[in-house]
Amino acid sequence: MLALIISGVAVTRAEIARHTGLARSTSSQRVDALIAHGFIDENAEAPSTGGRPPRRLSLRTDGHAIAGVDIGASHCRVGVLDMRGTLIAAREDSLTIANGPEAVLGHVERTLRTLLETADGSRTLRAIGVGVPGPVEFSTGRPVDPPIMPGWHRYPIPQFFEDRFGVRALVDNDVNVMALAEQRRAFSGTLHLLYLKVGTGIGCGIVADGRIHRGAQGSAGDIGHIRVGERHEPCRCGNSGCLEAIAGGAALAARLRESGLEAAGSLDIVQLVMEGNQEAVRMVREAGRAVGEVLSGLVNFFNPETVVVGGALAAVHDQLLAGVREAVYRRSNPLATHVLQIEPSRIGENAGAIGAGTLALEHALSPAQVDRTLAKDAAV
Amino acid sequence: MLALIISGVAVTRAEIARHTGLARSTSSQRVDALIAHGFIDENAEAPSTGGRPPRRLSLRTDGHAIAGVDIGASHCRVGVLDMRGTLIAAREDSLTIANGPEAVLGHVERTLRTLLETADGSRTLRAIGVGVPGPVEFSTGRPVDPPIMPGWHRYPIPQFFEDRFGVRALVDNDVNVMALAEQRRAFSGTLHLLYLKVGTGIGCGIVADGRIHRGAQGSAGDIGHIRVGERHEPCRCGNSGCLEAIAGGAALAARLRESGLEAAGSLDIVQLVMEGNQEAVRMVREAGRAVGEVLSGLVNFFNPETVVVGGALAAVHDQLLAGVREAVYRRSNPLATHVLQIEPSRIGENAGAIGAGTLALEHALSPAQVDRTLAKDAAV
Repeated sequence: MLALIISGVAVTRAEIARHTGLARSTSSQRVDALIAHGFIDENAEAPSTGGRPPRRLSLRTDGHAIAGVDIGASHCRVGVLDMRGTLIAAREDSLTIANGPEAVLGHVERTLRTLLETADGSRTLRAIGVGVPGPVEFSTGRPVDPPIMPGWHRYPIPQFFEDRFGVRALVDNDVNVMALAEQRRAFSGTLHLLYLKVGTGIGCGIVADGRIHRGAQGSAGDIGHIRVGERHEPCRCGNSGCLEAIAGGAALAARLRESGLEAAGSLDIVQLVMEGNQEAVRMVREAGRAVGEVLSGLVNFFNPETVVVGGALAAVHDQLLAGVREAVYRRSNPLATHVLQIEPSRIGENAGAIGAGTLALEHALSPAQVDRTLAKDAAV
Repeated sequence: MLALIISGVAVTRAEIARHTGLARSTSSQRVDALIAHGFIDENAEAPSTGGRPPRRLSLRTDGHAIAGVDIGASHCRVGVLDMRGTLIAAREDSLTIANGPEAVLGHVERTLRTLLETADGSRTLRAIGVGVPGPVEFSTGRPVDPPIMPGWHRYPIPQFFEDRFGVRALVDNDVNVMALAEQRRAFSGTLHLLYLKVGTGIGCGIVADGRIHRGAQGSAGDIGHIRVGERHEPCRCGNSGCLEAIAGGAALAARLRESGLEAAGSLDIVQLVMEGNQEAVRMVREAGRAVGEVLSGLVNFFNPETVVVGGALAAVHDQLLAGVREAVYRRSNPLATHVLQIEPSRIGENAGAIGAGTLALEHALSPAQVDRTLAKDAAV
């Protein structure tokens, strides 16, 4: 019913009854419940020339809020979205994820309360979405052996938020929600999209047929340890020739330091490239080729319409994407690259918060969840 | 409504009305229409002790038939399925796909008519599914530049069958329908499955979240030209080191001939391996490793629960799968291989016909299509 109203397919009580095939009285009862719980508004049209003017139903954008939280290795961004998915407030802070869940989530809680009060005190929080930089068992929202999140293994993140805000919290891997944000907000004509995050590590978010593909254990998109052609660089995983050991920001910075340059991480590499340092430019372009070589296989396998490249190194996307495109067009099957677009991120730094919020928003507006909300409130 | 009945969730008129939320009269009208069109039966339960016995609705398996057609490079298998997807008749003939669509489809038409008459003359054909060994634009059912199907480019296969049988025909790539058959009939607890066909060429069918993933141009799963590590064998595609040039049956047979053995294609390789020829055994195991090296990357990316290996070379799966498993477990991310099963095909030679039939069956029973059938018959 909400989907019909949001899409504009049915916006009056008569249209809703016709489209759902529900009995007129059942349909109207449900419309009343959606209004009572603040999901939708019913307003008179501009008066017509005669008779009672039809009343239009529309999604209520004020009154409610959705939180989108993007937790990175060394930062945390908290956003508040309205019910159409528009970001209405956001704040980023430096924060060390290795401080553990209580410290980090406590900070998120305080930031979110502040944002909700200052943004618009009259909004009721409906759901929370959280993206974290590690594998997550999506059904429970618990991280699973996340390599850069010490202390977070199986920590019940949803419970933390549900205890404090009384709403459902959904947790996912950060690249998954970034892929969702790009697909929903920037490339909405695209059904099959890959989001490559090229930063300290390398990961991939997958949207298949408009939905996040997480795979059997939620580890889909973990492409950092796919082997690159004839390379043998040793990797921290114990194998050699892994994509991350060749093209990840940490590996590039280490190699730049060997050349006597100062480079602690991805941001320094970006700085060097922007200053025109030839060694750094060459290295980023070469990293792009390695990413492209792995991507060419994934393009053959998955046949996406769009590949979005984000992450810290995408700040120098002229150099990075040149290498990526070169390798993909050299190796991929022509049918698969025929209309393929390989583009830098269009959403940029807010992709994680917007994506996490979008995940929560779509959950809050899903029929099963709306049913549950109406039933719960009715029981009170 | 059919889904409720098939799954056993709602099997009486009262239950159907309750589960669909439709008005009792609307719901009952629809049940009547489904009975009138032969989709379902309504039978009295064993008489209860008092009152009118409730009447049970069930999917009607007799009276209707679905055709599943598997067209290979040099064979054609035509199957007839009942409405539960059980194969009730099948026939395979040798046939050269390069003879072109009219000759091949004419043969399929005659075979199907014979099977329908001899199997059970009283069944009405409801839909036809066809699998072909090349890329297909699924929305139109037309092959697109299929390399081993000269004369078939953009040939309207669905139209051929619709003109002659008056029912909808769906056409898909053969590995897609084989993947569907394995997932629906043999690994039904699995949501994410890859089907690798290792024969003359190498292809992959993808089931993501229970649905065939075809990708943007329908070319998803085209893994034969993904590059294998440090290999440089020239490939007919113009690149080198492609999986098919290393591990495809045609490439293996050519290398065996260089060693002085008689091997025209995959069947001869299988024969040599079964006879214990050491060179052939070594080569098949090595081919398995190459397939496994590519698969290890796809396992990291896609995180399937099950990988099924079929195709002509899977007849010697002891040797082939040993190599595949060795490479996957060496290179893939432990989280993704934790519960991964790599298994030989369980359905075997009928996988194509059963999968094509399953595709057609699910289409025929889909709500939109049932609506269309009811509306069309009502208009007559």
